[in-house]
Amino acid sequence: MKPYSNPNLQTTMKTLQWIGDTSGHLRLIDQTRLPVEETYLDCHTVAQTHDAIRRLVVRGAPAIGIAAAYGVCVAVAEARREQPDLSVADARAAAHSAIDYLATSRPTAVNLFWALDRMRGIVDGSEDDSLAQRLLQEATAIHEQDRQMCAAMGQHGAPLLADCRNVLTHCNAGGLAASELGTALAVIYAAHDAGTPLHVYADETRPLLQGARLTAWELSRAGIDVTVLCDSMPACLMREGKIDAVIVGADRVAANGDAANKIGTYALAIVARHHGVPFYVVAPSSTFDMQLESGEGIPIEQRDRQEVSHPFGKQTVPDDAGVFNPAFDVTPADLITAIVTERGIIRPVNTANVLHVLANFAERADSED
Amino acid sequence: MKPYSNPNLQTTMKTLQWIGDTSGHLRLIDQTRLPVEETYLDCHTVAQTHDAIRRLVVRGAPAIGIAAAYGVCVAVAEARREQPDLSVADARAAAHSAIDYLATSRPTAVNLFWALDRMRGIVDGSEDDSLAQRLLQEATAIHEQDRQMCAAMGQHGAPLLADCRNVLTHCNAGGLAASELGTALAVIYAAHDAGTPLHVYADETRPLLQGARLTAWELSRAGIDVTVLCDSMPACLMREGKIDAVIVGADRVAANGDAANKIGTYALAIVARHHGVPFYVVAPSSTFDMQLESGEGIPIEQRDRQEVSHPFGKQTVPDDAGVFNPAFDVTPADLITAIVTERGIIRPVNTANVLHVLANFAERADSED
Repeated sequence: MKPYSNPNLQTTMKTLQWIGDTSGHLRLIDQTRLPVEETYLDCHTVAQTHDAIRRLVVRGAPAIGIAAAYGVCVAVAEARREQPDLSVADARAAAHSAIDYLATSRPTAVNLFWALDRMRGIVDGSEDDSLAQRLLQEATAIHEQDRQMCAAMGQHGAPLLADCRNVLTHCNAGGLAASELGTALAVIYAAHDAGTPLHVYADETRPLLQGARLTAWELSRAGIDVTVLCDSMPACLMREGKIDAVIVGADRVAANGDAANKIGTYALAIVARHHGVPFYVVAPSSTFDMQLESGEGIPIEQRDRQEVSHPFGKQTVPDDAGVFNPAFDVTPADLITAIVTERGIIRPVNTANVLHVLANFAERADSED
Repeated sequence: MKPYSNPNLQTTMKTLQWIGDTSGHLRLIDQTRLPVEETYLDCHTVAQTHDAIRRLVVRGAPAIGIAAAYGVCVAVAEARREQPDLSVADARAAAHSAIDYLATSRPTAVNLFWALDRMRGIVDGSEDDSLAQRLLQEATAIHEQDRQMCAAMGQHGAPLLADCRNVLTHCNAGGLAASELGTALAVIYAAHDAGTPLHVYADETRPLLQGARLTAWELSRAGIDVTVLCDSMPACLMREGKIDAVIVGADRVAANGDAANKIGTYALAIVARHHGVPFYVVAPSSTFDMQLESGEGIPIEQRDRQEVSHPFGKQTVPDDAGVFNPAFDVTPADLITAIVTERGIIRPVNTANVLHVLANFAERADSED
């Protein structure tokens, strides 16, 4: 696999970092303060980590999983600070308690549960003093594997954009949503790196404006032209033939390829189909929930009224009015042209092809260097 | 025609008022400050009136037309204040100059040009001291006729919603966009008044949030249940069967029924069609531009970057990123189930039916009391 060659991006994007040894802490770029301030939040307790995930200091399905994995390490470090002679049994209890607690932080992104299940496996398999060390190794491995998956998704997906000049994305599926390359943006970075002169339209993505604040910030930083528009505006660009492809991430993908992603993705897929514009989803295997036959079973998080009614603390909705604020919607597989994974491309999108591409990994990995 | 019977609404909505006699001024509710503050802006000069239209203190196609008509009266009053012995020729010159200047305030709403053409007719036909009086009579007549058109659109359209429980609207096509009943909301008010228990979903309508700030405010005030949602959210409600109809206003309708309206309307029409939800446009005859065969000729206003990049003064888009900010888009006639006018319902929407319904007015008016 060709390494990603944008030195600026590789060295400066610090979405998640573990600082120190097993008694260390998790450092997150505070995504609620971008693009105006680049500040970092240190999580020294599991409560701080839970709060950071809930408040979207860290967000994006892969990044949530990585943060939660490190959150279990934070919990054990915290317990050992409070009780320096912590027994192995008490350390395991603290880790189990943290796993259960962190699982309540957000309901939709399946990577959260996937990462916590991996950490639970470590807790259950550790009976000696090495627990903290093994947990940190596992969290670091999850982080590193995500980095590799992002790079692989970029390489698999880039040829899809080879003939594109203008692509549209929604929310942030970039390095801020994962390790440094992201999912949908990994494909854009890889295509750009391969010489495709892309211009990216980024939906601002109400209510929390991750497209305006995060995607535009990270693309600009990587030297890629980006134009921000409101979520209501892509259709008129498509009508004028100005969008060659739509490319987005996902928070959970069912076995048949139905994909939950940031609210507004489903409407975009309908509008893209209406104009004959290809619609791509990019998601690592950790985002697939093979227990769910279709997207109907995906729980959709409803978020606070205030996100809609008081943008930036300024009231825009009268008190007498209700507010509807789902964080995600589900795009049915039949509106998705292809799903790009680190194991290859699922196209057309159906249960058989999902199973085929995800299952082929071991075989494919053997044949690569 | 049954008079509208909601006393609360009739007595409290003061979108536009002329204060005083021919030396008086135009008073506008300041829509940029709703819903938090109900304040009024007095326009004593034509420059203030132009600025109020440009800044969206007053907006909505019919209201822009009415404001511009009164703006010509403001101009003559202003000229007479500056020069008490103003000659008839100078008064006419001031009025002509005001008409030309006000026509530059916003490009898309055709009612602006329609109203200014009527005022020009008065200027050109007045050769004596009665000019100021005749201009004020004409502006008042435009205002009163709009009130009657809104009531008539409500009565024509209400039966379309008789079996609906949940309707969706975009931007503000209510009393704040016209005289006190509005266009799309006139239909909702009339249906509600006729006993249809409607719940309204109001798109917040980025960038300037007229749906959240204005539509939710005026519907709540009229005692109608309203829920605000982001512009990206209607599709998931439609998929769940929770929207029975979409109903919107228009800023300009071409002869074939293609309709320009607030950005995002076109995407909504596509999404409604995808789910088999009827899509209604409500617009008085003054919004039709019969000079344009189709919507392709409608000029689309591009607005300032800041509306997108700095909502409420807070920066959300990095300086390096571009911004795309069209104020309107065009929905093709074939996505519109019906257009409700004060002269009847155009259905199916095509050039022949547009001509038929608009031309039938004289005949229909004769047969009514």
